[in-house]
Amino acid sequence: MVGEDESLINAMFKANIPVIASCGGEGVCSRCKVLVKEGRVKSLSTGKLTLEEQKQGYVLACRSFPQSHLVVEVPEETRLSEHQVALGESDGSGGRPVYGDMRKNGISPGDTDLGTGSSAFPLFRKLQLVLPEPDLNDREDDLGRLIRVIRKETGIKNLQPSLDVLRTLPQVLRQSGWKVTVSLAGGGECQAVEIIEIEPGHTAGQYYGLAVDIGTTTVVAQLIDLESGRTMGMKGTYNRQAAFGDDVISRIICASEGGLQGLQKAVVDTINGLVEELTMEQKIEPTDIRAVVCAGNTTMTHLFLGIDPTYIRLEPYTPAANNIPTVRAEHAGLKIHPQALLRCLPGIGSYVGGDITAGVLVTGMAFSDKLTLFIDVGTNGEIVLGNQEWLMSCACSAGPAFEGGGIRYGMRAMQGAIEHVKVTCGGADVEYKTIGGAAPVGICGSGLIECVAGLYRAGIIDRRGNFVNAGSAPRLREGAEGMEFVLCWSGESGRQEDITISEAEVKNLLRSKAAIYAGIRCMLQAVGLTVEAIEQVIIAGGFGRYINVRDAIDIGMLPDVPVEKYSFIGNSSLKGARAVLLSERAWEEIGEIIRKMTYLELSAGSAFMDEFVSALFIPHTDLNLFPSAQS
Amino acid sequence: MVGEDESLINAMFKANIPVIASCGGEGVCSRCKVLVKEGRVKSLSTGKLTLEEQKQGYVLACRSFPQSHLVVEVPEETRLSEHQVALGESDGSGGRPVYGDMRKNGISPGDTDLGTGSSAFPLFRKLQLVLPEPDLNDREDDLGRLIRVIRKETGIKNLQPSLDVLRTLPQVLRQSGWKVTVSLAGGGECQAVEIIEIEPGHTAGQYYGLAVDIGTTTVVAQLIDLESGRTMGMKGTYNRQAAFGDDVISRIICASEGGLQGLQKAVVDTINGLVEELTMEQKIEPTDIRAVVCAGNTTMTHLFLGIDPTYIRLEPYTPAANNIPTVRAEHAGLKIHPQALLRCLPGIGSYVGGDITAGVLVTGMAFSDKLTLFIDVGTNGEIVLGNQEWLMSCACSAGPAFEGGGIRYGMRAMQGAIEHVKVTCGGADVEYKTIGGAAPVGICGSGLIECVAGLYRAGIIDRRGNFVNAGSAPRLREGAEGMEFVLCWSGESGRQEDITISEAEVKNLLRSKAAIYAGIRCMLQAVGLTVEAIEQVIIAGGFGRYINVRDAIDIGMLPDVPVEKYSFIGNSSLKGARAVLLSERAWEEIGEIIRKMTYLELSAGSAFMDEFVSALFIPHTDLNLFPSAQS
Repeated sequence: MVGEDESLINAMFKANIPVIASCGGEGVCSRCKVLVKEGRVKSLSTGKLTLEEQKQGYVLACRSFPQSHLVVEVPEETRLSEHQVALGESDGSGGRPVYGDMRKNGISPGDTDLGTGSSAFPLFRKLQLVLPEPDLNDREDDLGRLIRVIRKETGIKNLQPSLDVLRTLPQVLRQSGWKVTVSLAGGGECQAVEIIEIEPGHTAGQYYGLAVDIGTTTVVAQLIDLESGRTMGMKGTYNRQAAFGDDVISRIICASEGGLQGLQKAVVDTINGLVEELTMEQKIEPTDIRAVVCAGNTTMTHLFLGIDPTYIRLEPYTPAANNIPTVRAEHAGLKIHPQALLRCLPGIGSYVGGDITAGVLVTGMAFSDKLTLFIDVGTNGEIVLGNQEWLMSCACSAGPAFEGGGIRYGMRAMQGAIEHVKVTCGGADVEYKTIGGAAPVGICGSGLIECVAGLYRAGIIDRRGNFVNAGSAPRLREGAEGMEFVLCWSGESGRQEDITISEAEVKNLLRSKAAIYAGIRCMLQAVGLTVEAIEQVIIAGGFGRYINVRDAIDIGMLPDVPVEKYSFIGNSSLKGARAVLLSERAWEEIGEIIRKMTYLELSAGSAFMDEFVSALFIPHTDLNLFPSAQS
Repeated sequence: MVGEDESLINAMFKANIPVIASCGGEGVCSRCKVLVKEGRVKSLSTGKLTLEEQKQGYVLACRSFPQSHLVVEVPEETRLSEHQVALGESDGSGGRPVYGDMRKNGISPGDTDLGTGSSAFPLFRKLQLVLPEPDLNDREDDLGRLIRVIRKETGIKNLQPSLDVLRTLPQVLRQSGWKVTVSLAGGGECQAVEIIEIEPGHTAGQYYGLAVDIGTTTVVAQLIDLESGRTMGMKGTYNRQAAFGDDVISRIICASEGGLQGLQKAVVDTINGLVEELTMEQKIEPTDIRAVVCAGNTTMTHLFLGIDPTYIRLEPYTPAANNIPTVRAEHAGLKIHPQALLRCLPGIGSYVGGDITAGVLVTGMAFSDKLTLFIDVGTNGEIVLGNQEWLMSCACSAGPAFEGGGIRYGMRAMQGAIEHVKVTCGGADVEYKTIGGAAPVGICGSGLIECVAGLYRAGIIDRRGNFVNAGSAPRLREGAEGMEFVLCWSGESGRQEDITISEAEVKNLLRSKAAIYAGIRCMLQAVGLTVEAIEQVIIAGGFGRYINVRDAIDIGMLPDVPVEKYSFIGNSSLKGARAVLLSERAWEEIGEIIRKMTYLELSAGSAFMDEFVSALFIPHTDLNLFPSAQS
């Protein structure tokens, strides 16, 4: 039942029907439109709905309140449903670098065998042991004996039993004939590994861990068998916090105004929902999950743990904590094993969070002699430059354009998103490819890059992004908000209207790409290096499954480095969480990474603004920076 | 109300009327006699009650069950009441070495100022801080900033906040103008100090700690102001486990037979009772107690934490744990602050427990260049020999004679105990002094030593402890169980009967003293040293407030070392607990002590038995070992 004073959007979130609400239900973004098929609603605002849409019965869910029994249809483009969430790794995608692989490929000097083998210590693990029986020549106490054998098996130095283990220790050891299975949790740099359970005999019970990427929009969780290191399942879904706002800033404001607990509950519910799905699928119990590692940006980590994020967005932009202590997952509200530990990857500052340290970990760049550029393009655009000697990070406020924000038909890389675009016949025709082969409902980041590159090559836009040959192409026309180019006619579209891109939107994209390029330039300048010094570029993020690197260089978004030096790493946040879940060594490496990594504040001084302005051109004011660029 | 199937002794313990029950209610020791003044009881056994006593209406409380409403009188000698418990330090006793003092006197190279000052880190402490406000040049996260300042103030390297602290951190820091009070708990060797609380402003709230000596018979607790290091109060009481048996062996048997939880509850109730008394006296709340440190023998520590002690008494005598992890006091059942930590001092083995490591700590011997002999005389008789280079310990099964066990009129050092004895006029007269100046009800350890020495010097007993001039003294007579010597006629006695010592009891005492001396000799032989090498002897324990060292040497209990090299340390178990409560450095020293200390098993080989047999004489078979002994 929905009350009269409850907006449709709230009712839909409660009913687990996720919708896009970029502005946090403020009636500004107009993306939460729904079609009222039966019944009456009171709408406080029509936002940017067209008259045509209003006539058809569309309303904004965030501004509308039911006045009777209702039947509402949620259009495809409004709906944020689970199968649309891009997961970190698609099956059989092969060849993308992951933590273990990269290290084997010589990028990192480490030799940790992740996932299996006695040299990897997952955050939780069981160990089958046979203890030597005490006799008059070996009278060591039971605990000392147990620790001695665990230490011999694992090399772990700092071991502490729980009181519950101590209480049953003598009986269990003797009744089992000194053959036991112990459960170990925790560990890493000066943190004790706790012996939390001792069972008689060699039990075969399975135990799992959860690696979670807490994104602002989507949350992806991987269920991992901690004994074998095998991934049992992976699920992604929208972050239920979307009901409170689309980006981190609106969420922080919401938290500051009393919404912290609601935001925390939303993301915890999201993860608990994924746990339920994953465990049902695998026919195991949530209590079989014994450890969790999460990676997210600084705001997401704060909100997840119920830590006030207010000051992240107020000068001088200090988060409550970069390093989060390992806590009981129960304490954060996760419904898994009551003793399970939760570890959140630490960040560097307000705008370089645990998702980025996770990424740096899985690239192996912190232990490589190759000068590496790591770019995670999202709303923020975090960039890390460095090698085994040094690491520097920055966040360059790229804006959400490559995630579909501020672009009328922009969307994330989901079902029906145009991911590849080819402008042909001098702009008279467009070839495109959508995710899942569905009728197009919008365009995602990779499509937008190819679109801008294509329009530029076709001579439809100039170096500044102005539409220059109005009228010369049938697809170029005057729209409601200035010049626009039709990517897809309504007949082919999945939304019964033309899918277009406007001049204002192209300029918006140029600002985004300029911010990224300017960030890279500033970092290079800060360390006195040039683009030529970059030995590899690794790209992470969900702004498209694979972007066309050639096109991205041609529009001046990415530095003009030979294309073969580029590689993609997918959801490196999730992969980093997984690595830390499976290996104490990875956790220690995270510690080394955050100690090594400095943060370059781009807002200090005028260097960034100068670089930004120069980078607003296609590909750049200074063409010498892009010798290979094809125009 | 007492049911018919509940023994009187159980009813009395429930009613908080402590009685002596050496044998654990088995009807063997006959020490729990009570006088039935009104009503009927069913007695299953009369034990060793005399016919006279039975006629008067005495019954054994452990073997008697009420058949009607009863009025029962508990005689003084049966009662174990609180004012009779010898506390660790009497007021104004002055001059006894305590941890801090001894260190200042150069025994230890350390320079820790215990109790106050920033170099001492109690297990719980509050810290008043002013943090530098963040600005664009100092954007460190709130937690990093807090840790930086705490580290600067204290030098603590490994700091972890609780999740609750993180959750309020940003608000508290800013609302208080960056002036806060933090609560720190834990710490020591590779264990993080936890920031468990943050309060705005500089709060003046008081916080206390508890140091507890958990003895088999008595429990003594000291309430300490953790800010000043000042002792606020001290209380002692019987260990309510006495209802389950008098010595560790009977308690272990009881625990093995399903009584573990009852035993745990008994000692926890005992400590909670002391907490209640101490906090009422100081007009504070139990929740103002933020940390607890306990020291006890290995069995007491096991029982207190609910750890099965069964195998302590079964070959090869391995305890469940020597090193006990720091846990929440709540987890052990203590009713103090819910976040308070509990630390139990670690032992070396089944028969050298945390009370002894506590003692070694406070003597300072582990950090002294003087070869030191430390003796804690109790049922077990633990001995430690060594210096800063090495430490060796042993337990020599002295038996309970010096605590009054196995001696008809023997008792602990309580009100009415004869503590000094002088046999005069060739055995015709006896001068004595009792504790509290009361009419004598028995004789404690120090009195027994003087008694044996006096009887020997008067020629009443020979070197083997045989009564040699029967009939020559009016006090020497044939008793029910052989020859006996009357120490105090019934007219002067507080128990309306003669207080005597029999030949069998003298021989019992000689076995006890022989065990102690044999233990000392074995340790010296194990390291190839002689008595002359001993540079100081420190005596702890509750077998008498001060024993007469001259007499103890003369009967061959203590080695013939110049009397001025002897000193008394009182309740070193309590003092060690106090030191660890007040100083993380003391806790680290405990760690060094247990790593350094080896255990000499006296039951292995025949050396101990040979030494024991030689030491059964007064002072010894080999008189050369006692050149100064006066006979």
